[in-house]
Amino acid sequence: MQSGSTFDSLASKTRSISSYQLAKILGDWPSVSRRGPLYARLALGIRSLILDARIPYGVRLPGERSLATELHVSRRTVSSAYALLRDEGLLMSRRGGGSSTQLPPGRSRPGAPWGPAVGQGSNWFDLAIAAIAGDSRIALSLAKVHEVLPHYLAQHGYAPQGLLPLREAVAEHYTRRGLATTVEQIAITSGAQQAISLAVEALSNPLEPIVIETPTYPGALDVLRRYRSRVIDVGLDEDSESLRVGMRQVLPRLVYVIADYHNPTGRLLDTAQREALARTAAECGSHLLVDESFVELGFEGASSVAPLASVGGEGRVISVGSMSKSYWAGLRVGWVRADRAVIARLVEARATFDMASPIIDQLLAAELIRTGKDMLDYRRQMLRAQRDALVEALHSHLPDWKFQVPSGGLSLWVNLGEPISTVLVARAESYRIRLASGTRFGLSGTLENYLRIPFTLPPPDLVVAIERLSAAVADVNRGWSLTAPIGEAFV
Amino acid sequence: MQSGSTFDSLASKTRSISSYQLAKILGDWPSVSRRGPLYARLALGIRSLILDARIPYGVRLPGERSLATELHVSRRTVSSAYALLRDEGLLMSRRGGGSSTQLPPGRSRPGAPWGPAVGQGSNWFDLAIAAIAGDSRIALSLAKVHEVLPHYLAQHGYAPQGLLPLREAVAEHYTRRGLATTVEQIAITSGAQQAISLAVEALSNPLEPIVIETPTYPGALDVLRRYRSRVIDVGLDEDSESLRVGMRQVLPRLVYVIADYHNPTGRLLDTAQREALARTAAECGSHLLVDESFVELGFEGASSVAPLASVGGEGRVISVGSMSKSYWAGLRVGWVRADRAVIARLVEARATFDMASPIIDQLLAAELIRTGKDMLDYRRQMLRAQRDALVEALHSHLPDWKFQVPSGGLSLWVNLGEPISTVLVARAESYRIRLASGTRFGLSGTLENYLRIPFTLPPPDLVVAIERLSAAVADVNRGWSLTAPIGEAFV
Repeated sequence: MQSGSTFDSLASKTRSISSYQLAKILGDWPSVSRRGPLYARLALGIRSLILDARIPYGVRLPGERSLATELHVSRRTVSSAYALLRDEGLLMSRRGGGSSTQLPPGRSRPGAPWGPAVGQGSNWFDLAIAAIAGDSRIALSLAKVHEVLPHYLAQHGYAPQGLLPLREAVAEHYTRRGLATTVEQIAITSGAQQAISLAVEALSNPLEPIVIETPTYPGALDVLRRYRSRVIDVGLDEDSESLRVGMRQVLPRLVYVIADYHNPTGRLLDTAQREALARTAAECGSHLLVDESFVELGFEGASSVAPLASVGGEGRVISVGSMSKSYWAGLRVGWVRADRAVIARLVEARATFDMASPIIDQLLAAELIRTGKDMLDYRRQMLRAQRDALVEALHSHLPDWKFQVPSGGLSLWVNLGEPISTVLVARAESYRIRLASGTRFGLSGTLENYLRIPFTLPPPDLVVAIERLSAAVADVNRGWSLTAPIGEAFV
Repeated sequence: MQSGSTFDSLASKTRSISSYQLAKILGDWPSVSRRGPLYARLALGIRSLILDARIPYGVRLPGERSLATELHVSRRTVSSAYALLRDEGLLMSRRGGGSSTQLPPGRSRPGAPWGPAVGQGSNWFDLAIAAIAGDSRIALSLAKVHEVLPHYLAQHGYAPQGLLPLREAVAEHYTRRGLATTVEQIAITSGAQQAISLAVEALSNPLEPIVIETPTYPGALDVLRRYRSRVIDVGLDEDSESLRVGMRQVLPRLVYVIADYHNPTGRLLDTAQREALARTAAECGSHLLVDESFVELGFEGASSVAPLASVGGEGRVISVGSMSKSYWAGLRVGWVRADRAVIARLVEARATFDMASPIIDQLLAAELIRTGKDMLDYRRQMLRAQRDALVEALHSHLPDWKFQVPSGGLSLWVNLGEPISTVLVARAESYRIRLASGTRFGLSGTLENYLRIPFTLPPPDLVVAIERLSAAVADVNRGWSLTAPIGEAFV
């Protein structure tokens, strides 16, 4: 009865996926694994979509006959695949209700929505999230916050647009970067994730076209799903040429772009490319939602490239910043820089979500932005060393994998040479490595050939992680696949 | 050009309101002010709706002829009213674009979305938000957090469901209240506001009926607007009988209720009434979204009433808690207690909003919940004294106003005896008192007869505030109305 009543309301949110849609995102499933009977490979394809969260749980799958027709296979192939998934606890069938995906009891999905790995034992390497640990100097800065806290404790503690000292620090930082900024142009958010959410809500309508590059930051994709935006994804390239072509084709309201040390590829657009992008945005009447989460993490000498907002029109560029990548994600402090009209809309929308950001973290962030230069320099050196260690480990253990060496950011974007990303990520779990498969960085379910590997661990750990990963690769090459009992893959 | 490009996208979000809708929310506008020409009273009515944010800015008003027909007035009356509002900067007319509401340049609205007063000079009394200042003991607890922080700084800092120590503290607190609770049943949120947002998203669909009591917490109303819920509001009564009747009539998916020191009325449901509510919820297949933000603030001896979740089915009741009212809103720490299936959905939805809550505040909240008993006892005594001071001040300065004296919570819900709430709140601003008009606590634009007055200031301040308020009342009774130059009302 108890869980029953809950189930009712969950069921009321049940979505379904058509044969056509499923066939589309399954893509070339028979060749994803070149081994095993057809039904097992179909099960693998569907299982990958579920584990990868491209099919959320609670979604009703198409009927066996209809899917069989769509895929040009026998109904028996589909029913055997469904049966296998049922045995694994990934499918639940109810009388007359068809088969719905479900989260196997007690299992937390590796996949979406994009978010940190939930609960991991010791001796795990979490490479699913590209984020680095905090710095003990943050504790020192907290002591400074301590001194001013009583003043703020004397107030009720709501600051919808953000505390003035933090907005001052952020505005000064932009101004130092060559982009004159006032406190009125800044709104503090709960990390870049909320900043992106609010910007998409304030500047676009559901079903309006929004152009993104693929691969891109999965958290942004989750936001676009939430707002049911019509997402047009173009392949990422070095100079954002494809992006500009895509913009001219659909004249999008909004374009999400990471110009500084792109996540996951590390691409850095130069000034000329930014100017071209800004020109195209002006031609198309598009807003550029520019995610600068990684801008501080250039370790071949800090980026001297002009902020996109300084080459684009004031009203045209919405810049998103965050403490999470450069300082510590545990702060949950981000911000938006935009013109006042946009900021007013964001602050208004934000209040209905969660009112405001916490005072202590805002004071701490202000202190860090003002005094954190040494910390950042140290972290850049550290990241450079970690990047080099990861590159070397990959060269020696997985020499066939191809990637470009980025001049900043937190990760390598690796071409595996074959579509094994989802399978490999699942297998890696049994070696206590948590990774995000390449498919998480796009919408269309491609990118099975790619894997993001963050260099966010100390060099010795990265070496061990890559050794373990190469063992997982060997298993996959020896024929291990997700059709192996799924329990195993998630020990 | 710059702001131009922004304007385009804002314009794309322009909504409009029909003559029928406007006439409906205008209600009995000719009698709201019994003075001045008809066009001025119509302007007053529309102005109140704008200032009160029941008509957001950027909304296109109906054409003059159509509204005139709907209101049975001459077109000249409507055009004069529009002209007046244009002169005041509340309406903007574009060629062919009709008249749209706008925020007068440089003005921040007192009204929605529900949120803290933005920027206030010295010698202002902010009674728009029912929240009390923090306590210096919070700074002491922060020192304890300091000791454990290094351990957390060594991790990437994402905790989507919330830090275990905080979920343990919250679960233990529920268990002490007689409601056995495990850490799996708790998700930490950014205040009660986010908890309500996530619960509504996870447990209801747009256009599904959700029953609320009127008056109620404006932040919850903003959430229901955001999710385009079909809100059925019933009048609040002592024993929630109307609520139960309303539930039986519409069999809502979700019911939002404040059982402990209701905001704004302070009503406390007893155990029998809670049991009746839980039975009705079971009959109707409804979920109860129970906002317990004020549960710690009973100052006639802490509430010995059983939590609703302990009399309702586990799967049926979603309890929302918060540190904001009992400790400090500057923490932005709240939580949801529900069964695991619901918690899983909330955590998933939360990640796409803003990933997780900040580490430091969660550690601080855990410390406060564990050790804050003395602080709470002190605050209850303080609030009781403030309540008594407010009651006395009202009796002596505004003896005609009627209210019940609550045994907990943060505010009095005062019946003004005439529909002047919006006008009075606007006038009070010129006496440097910020208040929320009664209309903010309901959807249908009634409650013009009511005013929430929080007893969240020290007794001497409350006395001065009520003296000023009575002066504002005198102005209104002498005929001052919002048709006075609006600048004046917002000095």
